[in-house]
Amino acid sequence: MRNIKLILQFDGSAFHGYQMQPNAPTVEEALRGAIKHILHENAAPVSCSRTDAFVHAEEFCCNFRTETPMSCEKLLRALNAVLPPQIAVVSCEDADLSFHARYDCRGKEYRYLIWNAPQRNPFYLDRALHVPQKLDEALRDRAAKDFIGTHDFAAFCAAGSSVKSTVRTIFDCGVTRNGDLLTFSVCGNGFLYNMVRIMVGTLLEIANGAIEPDAIPAILVSKEREQAGPTAKPQGLYLHRVFYEGEENDG
Amino acid sequence: MRNIKLILQFDGSAFHGYQMQPNAPTVEEALRGAIKHILHENAAPVSCSRTDAFVHAEEFCCNFRTETPMSCEKLLRALNAVLPPQIAVVSCEDADLSFHARYDCRGKEYRYLIWNAPQRNPFYLDRALHVPQKLDEALRDRAAKDFIGTHDFAAFCAAGSSVKSTVRTIFDCGVTRNGDLLTFSVCGNGFLYNMVRIMVGTLLEIANGAIEPDAIPAILVSKEREQAGPTAKPQGLYLHRVFYEGEENDG
Repeated sequence: MRNIKLILQFDGSAFHGYQMQPNAPTVEEALRGAIKHILHENAAPVSCSRTDAFVHAEEFCCNFRTETPMSCEKLLRALNAVLPPQIAVVSCEDADLSFHARYDCRGKEYRYLIWNAPQRNPFYLDRALHVPQKLDEALRDRAAKDFIGTHDFAAFCAAGSSVKSTVRTIFDCGVTRNGDLLTFSVCGNGFLYNMVRIMVGTLLEIANGAIEPDAIPAILVSKEREQAGPTAKPQGLYLHRVFYEGEENDG
Repeated sequence: MRNIKLILQFDGSAFHGYQMQPNAPTVEEALRGAIKHILHENAAPVSCSRTDAFVHAEEFCCNFRTETPMSCEKLLRALNAVLPPQIAVVSCEDADLSFHARYDCRGKEYRYLIWNAPQRNPFYLDRALHVPQKLDEALRDRAAKDFIGTHDFAAFCAAGSSVKSTVRTIFDCGVTRNGDLLTFSVCGNGFLYNMVRIMVGTLLEIANGAIEPDAIPAILVSKEREQAGPTAKPQGLYLHRVFYEGEENDG
């Protein structure tokens, strides 16, 4: 028995998220289909997270058990040949049998892109949120710092979620500008359902004055979803990195 | 009578080039349709260049005559509302009646992107050429410098072109690397049919050893298309900037 660890990248525009679902194309469905095609096995991949429909991943980790004697190099080439072009396998290796892509994940970094110019950018249509009004990134960066630390993020969790605890630790969080492109980055030990998109929606409300710049600590304490801003659209969100025990975190 | 100057951006993936053609969607067709829809006029826009099918533009200039009293600001908003999202009008202004987007163009800068990593990048599928073998950008940069100057580029012109002269002046040309992304940049007073894509194809042949690194001067002198390399695929090509008299060239 082997335990294969894959690192994927995918453009989420073409998929209704990672996880299998009826009547909609997903990354997991494509991956299971590719493994079945190549290895003639019904693999049950475990993943670092689910991602919402249309959310992108620059680094996404999953693992699956197999009996195949095929080399990792050959398997990587075969998977890339069979998978849709919107998904790439960038690494394929034998992991310890105990490795579990979800339980062993120590942290993740998400990024959210905002195209902040009067006119849309055709190259970011499904890759960023377009905000025509000029945003003050320094204001938003200061507000974003209030997310850092260990907090109950119940106010930043979509209804319908059934997690045991809504406490999460954010290691770092900030907003940077490169020309007309704003990047919101957040790194933490775990994220609730829609948490990053609600954080972004809240910072946008701060930018337009609907929420006070220093309101985030009080919103966290309230634990009320309605105190936070709306859920920003999925197309701007990227799972940027996933961290595991023993890895260098140079991010 | 007014002469409206537009600056467009477009993701070329969705279009068979700029110029109108039967039975295929083009940028010009979309633009004429939008003007007709808004102004009820059959405009005949003049453009800085044609672009090939699937080629992108980050700055593309065109102009058209109209009798409308509509403000440029309102026209810009209306065009962006009506045009397909893959096209954006980033500027709209009244130009001198004598302004001609093609004849007055003093130069253009093209860029060609190469994703140079073993595995494909899902975010550059229709945005760059994927070359898995590691390329030596210093070697290609040195070779690219041989394009600089005034030369007869007949060897770098696709068959079927009917221009009067194949002499063009290249102001600057080079290759840079940013991580796994290589950018070929070339700035000149004009370009022949497929010229940039044949330049790139030739540099790729130099990279893989099929053409000698110092062969470009001799290929230019030969004026024979078959001496140069193949035509690189259009999806990696971007019209990056267009220059007009009186403009600052800070590129």
